[in-house]
Amino acid sequence: MKKRLGILGGMGPMATADLYTKIVELTDAGCDNDHIRVIIDSNTAIPDRTSAILSGGPDPVPEMLSAAGNLISCGAECIIMPCNTAHYFLPELQPHVSVPILDMTKITAERCSVLYPGMKAAILATRGTLASGVYARALDGYGVSYIVPDDEEQSILMHLIYDVVKASEPLDPVKDLWCSLLDGLREKGADLFLLACTELPILSDRLAVPGPFIDPTRELAKAAIEYCGYRVRQQSGD
Amino acid sequence: MKKRLGILGGMGPMATADLYTKIVELTDAGCDNDHIRVIIDSNTAIPDRTSAILSGGPDPVPEMLSAAGNLISCGAECIIMPCNTAHYFLPELQPHVSVPILDMTKITAERCSVLYPGMKAAILATRGTLASGVYARALDGYGVSYIVPDDEEQSILMHLIYDVVKASEPLDPVKDLWCSLLDGLREKGADLFLLACTELPILSDRLAVPGPFIDPTRELAKAAIEYCGYRVRQQSGD
Repeated sequence: MKKRLGILGGMGPMATADLYTKIVELTDAGCDNDHIRVIIDSNTAIPDRTSAILSGGPDPVPEMLSAAGNLISCGAECIIMPCNTAHYFLPELQPHVSVPILDMTKITAERCSVLYPGMKAAILATRGTLASGVYARALDGYGVSYIVPDDEEQSILMHLIYDVVKASEPLDPVKDLWCSLLDGLREKGADLFLLACTELPILSDRLAVPGPFIDPTRELAKAAIEYCGYRVRQQSGD
Repeated sequence: MKKRLGILGGMGPMATADLYTKIVELTDAGCDNDHIRVIIDSNTAIPDRTSAILSGGPDPVPEMLSAAGNLISCGAECIIMPCNTAHYFLPELQPHVSVPILDMTKITAERCSVLYPGMKAAILATRGTLASGVYARALDGYGVSYIVPDDEEQSILMHLIYDVVKASEPLDPVKDLWCSLLDGLREKGADLFLLACTELPILSDRLAVPGPFIDPTRELAKAAIEYCGYRVRQQSGD
């Protein structure tokens, strides 16, 4: 039975566009009518999640619920959110939402446990996502061991995310910095890298350095396609 | 006053993703909350527009109206459609839709008349879009003269759209074919090229051959940003 998919978006708009594009690209479809019907509310009025968690900023939950209500009124039968940090609020949202919200962090953790059993993941994320603890909890739940960058490594990562990718600076000049960050984490035991910030897959795709990497947005797209009763297009590397 | 934007999508899903991505990229915004609130219904149940126009296929209007109703129920204050051929049905849709549907073909024609006054456009589109007459009417309305490819040129164009771009084949090998198609149209008096098929901007961006080109999806994105009360980000070439 085919289901309609809702995307609770706007956190942020570019991550929403990226998730939607990945869903279209990864659906095994021969024509427009073979694709999933997708409803998106890119609700840019949702207050900043990190600031709500870390410094008592405005609560994002009411605006998230308003968007979920829109999606359900348009017939969405499940909902996904293209924001890692937003998953901190999922336990608070789900009881008020009448359709399942697929959990990107659990889907990613399960994928790690299946694809790389017994291996150690490095969580690459913003300080806000790390502080939310969403990936630590999800990985614990699937028995996946993990490390996080130390303070100096985290500063390098924040520089790459904010000053390079978000600022649309050229990526080639930071290739060595990115490689040495990964090498340092490998020396501490990391076997794979969780790209738990929507900017990081851009870096890893363009610079094509060895991983292995797990892209939660891509895993969420694939899980949503299957949940809605469609088939994932087979691609190299899958 | 800021307005909410609705995208009546699914015609097709990739063109919908492309339009939404262009809106996000072209909005002059410093953070998530500076972006437009966008509602999208990617309604993949809308029957094929070309087949309805050319061969009496199922009427797409009822499903287009159902999607428009969804967008309005979520607060959309204007609607855009990322499908050239779908604009054939706009005069039938608008009387039943309580918010304005911005007309991509008129926006494009106006842009031609302002940017390239007195110049002749070549309409590059599928046979279906050409048969719908949407661009011929829009260009006539703004006093822009135009030519269309002859039969042989149109066959080359259909090959580039369907066998190369839609089939995700490598683009470099067709660079000479694309250039000679444009040169042939230039010899017949074309001064600029209307990329009136959502696959063609991909070809023109990647192969970087001399134009000038007008991309209707990009013009629609910019017009929608301004209509909704936001500012377009200034980019090179604008």
